[in-house]
Amino acid sequence: MSQPLDFFLFYGSLYSYIAVMRIEETARTAGVAVRWRPFNLRAIMVEQNNTARPPAKMRYIWRDLERRAQAHDLPFRPTPPYPVDPELRALRVGTVAAVEGWCPEFSRAVFRAWMQDHKTPHETLEAVLRGLGKDPAAILTRAESPAIQAALDAQTNAARDLGLFGAPTFAVGEELFWGGDRLEEALACARDA
Amino acid sequence: MSQPLDFFLFYGSLYSYIAVMRIEETARTAGVAVRWRPFNLRAIMVEQNNTARPPAKMRYIWRDLERRAQAHDLPFRPTPPYPVDPELRALRVGTVAAVEGWCPEFSRAVFRAWMQDHKTPHETLEAVLRGLGKDPAAILTRAESPAIQAALDAQTNAARDLGLFGAPTFAVGEELFWGGDRLEEALACARDA
Repeated sequence: MSQPLDFFLFYGSLYSYIAVMRIEETARTAGVAVRWRPFNLRAIMVEQNNTARPPAKMRYIWRDLERRAQAHDLPFRPTPPYPVDPELRALRVGTVAAVEGWCPEFSRAVFRAWMQDHKTPHETLEAVLRGLGKDPAAILTRAESPAIQAALDAQTNAARDLGLFGAPTFAVGEELFWGGDRLEEALACARDA
Repeated sequence: MSQPLDFFLFYGSLYSYIAVMRIEETARTAGVAVRWRPFNLRAIMVEQNNTARPPAKMRYIWRDLERRAQAHDLPFRPTPPYPVDPELRALRVGTVAAVEGWCPEFSRAVFRAWMQDHKTPHETLEAVLRGLGKDPAAILTRAESPAIQAALDAQTNAARDLGLFGAPTFAVGEELFWGGDRLEEALACARDA
């Protein structure tokens, strides 16, 4: 009897890319259901006074991300723009997508455009939405609604309450797995729960 | 034709534990030589303004470390003291050990005492040195010598020049692998170099 896996992602998080691209197929193979939960990681990191990005660490992350993409046969072209989505527009649209059930395909398209074509998540929204057969104007209006802000706040509060500090994070109940490297371990935990 | 693997470790680094315990056997199996290089990570993190330790992240690290220890069949008893080695005494003795060629067994004993018996690296030095058949007084005196300080500074400078920002870090030439999870990947890189 498996438990669902909660997938906490953020549209400004570099390593979320690999998890976004891999999780659906990997979870299907494991027989585990995934709940996509975009949340405001930036707000949490600011609260935690955890926003330092030393240049040495950034250089490493870019190289490591390139290796991870190669290892998983995912497109990646150095070096994508960063940081991105300053006004959290992609995050709010991702919240609409999560509420309406099209978060996986939306997220894959946004991250692919970012990592392969160097189009930032906030710049690429209209094109991505059109590509998914959505009405960009209607979705972008809904994304700014109080209902979506409330849904996003609820996810961010849930993430904070669980003790999240980074993304991607996988959760099985209250058991946390931080980082894309932990996907298989998280799925095994969900499967055996 | 394999290249040696540089193993950068720090005696105050929690995740260094798993790497310290695993690296010799794993590298032997891979046919890769390991150079143990203790360095002053704390100085580098202070320089990089990267010393935030949010309570949520610390809670996660303790839990994750416990899981990693279980996965690798290593002793671990929650929750070891932290932070440790404020005066870098263990680091200076580790530098003596690296210079003299007994860093692997020294490091394993120090980390085991820390993670299993909750004896901090600086408190356990005499007992560990005696257990290794060394003369604690002679080693502790040598550890405070200008020659050892110079050897330690050289390692820290090399780590900084390579772009390190955390530990454990494995390096194959200038290719960096941060975190114990990357040990196998680093060894494959060294083996195929």
